Amino acid sequence: MSCANRAASVMEGVIVPRADAPDVVIQRLPIYLRSLDHLAARDRQVVSSQDLALEAGVSAAQVRKDLSHFGEFGKQGLGYDIAYLRSQLERILHLDRPWYVLIVGAGALGHALVHYGTFAQRNYHIRAVFDNDDLKIGQPIGDGLVVQPMKEMCETIQSRQISIAILAIPASHAQQVAEEVVRCGVRGILNYAPINLAVPQNIPVANLDPVASLQGLSFYL
Amino acid sequence: MSCANRAASVMEGVIVPRADAPDVVIQRLPIYLRSLDHLAARDRQVVSSQDLALEAGVSAAQVRKDLSHFGEFGKQGLGYDIAYLRSQLERILHLDRPWYVLIVGAGALGHALVHYGTFAQRNYHIRAVFDNDDLKIGQPIGDGLVVQPMKEMCETIQSRQISIAILAIPASHAQQVAEEVVRCGVRGILNYAPINLAVPQNIPVANLDPVASLQGLSFYL
Repeated sequence: MSCANRAASVMEGVIVPRADAPDVVIQRLPIYLRSLDHLAARDRQVVSSQDLALEAGVSAAQVRKDLSHFGEFGKQGLGYDIAYLRSQLERILHLDRPWYVLIVGAGALGHALVHYGTFAQRNYHIRAVFDNDDLKIGQPIGDGLVVQPMKEMCETIQSRQISIAILAIPASHAQQVAEEVVRCGVRGILNYAPINLAVPQNIPVANLDPVASLQGLSFYL
Repeated sequence: MSCANRAASVMEGVIVPRADAPDVVIQRLPIYLRSLDHLAARDRQVVSSQDLALEAGVSAAQVRKDLSHFGEFGKQGLGYDIAYLRSQLERILHLDRPWYVLIVGAGALGHALVHYGTFAQRNYHIRAVFDNDDLKIGQPIGDGLVVQPMKEMCETIQSRQISIAILAIPASHAQQVAEEVVRCGVRGILNYAPINLAVPQNIPVANLDPVASLQGLSFYL
């Protein structure tokens, strides 16, 4: 793509973030971003809605409709400028800044999460790990962290500018811990516990329950 | 709930599994099932669509509409018989039988998954773990398993009646491994790699990408 084309895309790319974009659309934007990353890694610079759809596992009409919630990003007949669309999706999703994250639960899942390098690559930085188990508290975990007791949570969230909590704990503790992290100032939760958390409406929660995902698969088998 | 009521529910509960139930509805059924489990654990026997919705984090209208794809499960003014609705959801989702599962990837995530007791409780039994790392192959993992080399995959899938594969591997290997498990007879995939897998249309894939989930959260922060 030439500089001239790039400039044209930029002019067209007026961001109109509408508050009414459905959550299901928002949740597909990271998939488009991931797909654009894969295309860029193969040295692609422009992509049609058809090819982006193929990469993302949806229809081309879905791609166009989803993106139209936020502005006009493509050029009729020319497709999307990959670098530009990536930067705009990052802006829409608030990824143009680092996010600081804590994990509650220093079990097997907590360890796997601490060592998942993709978090830091994507600007999610794990700054604290908590557990209520005296045998785990004080143990080193990950890169320069030590498992902390729950009572240090509020102070740590403030001092380390943490805004997201990952709950890697059993369902039996998750509601209580969710209330605690929210009380201490966390603004969003990624929940691995197989339970629907009751939190204030302004606190978004993303759920990752492998059993629910397996059960959703089994329907088709 | 009396036996008479229970019988009435059974009579009403004619299962009409329609092929046209949207996937998004299918994916909510495990959440309803999980919610019913929590209600049953609190000794509830009957639940209104309002209370089930509250537990599942959706609207009461959504609950009623979703369930109506599969038949009539509630009794006007009486709500749902929890035990009955659970058993019907289990039947619809094909959970009234054990499922045998393999994991590819014996890293930190693979270990966490092997030790996640909820799988077996829900009738998903991990019967094999594979890796391509010579240092991991032959090591014990989980309950009586040993990490196996990839070349044993086809034979193992057949002999242990495995129908679901969990991919706990980097994105760079996931497409190739997905093709391999499908070729060997796996019928569904739970994919932790941050990539959209290209597999035949009759092979359902569920994706769990924590980075995509965090990015979906960040939009709201």
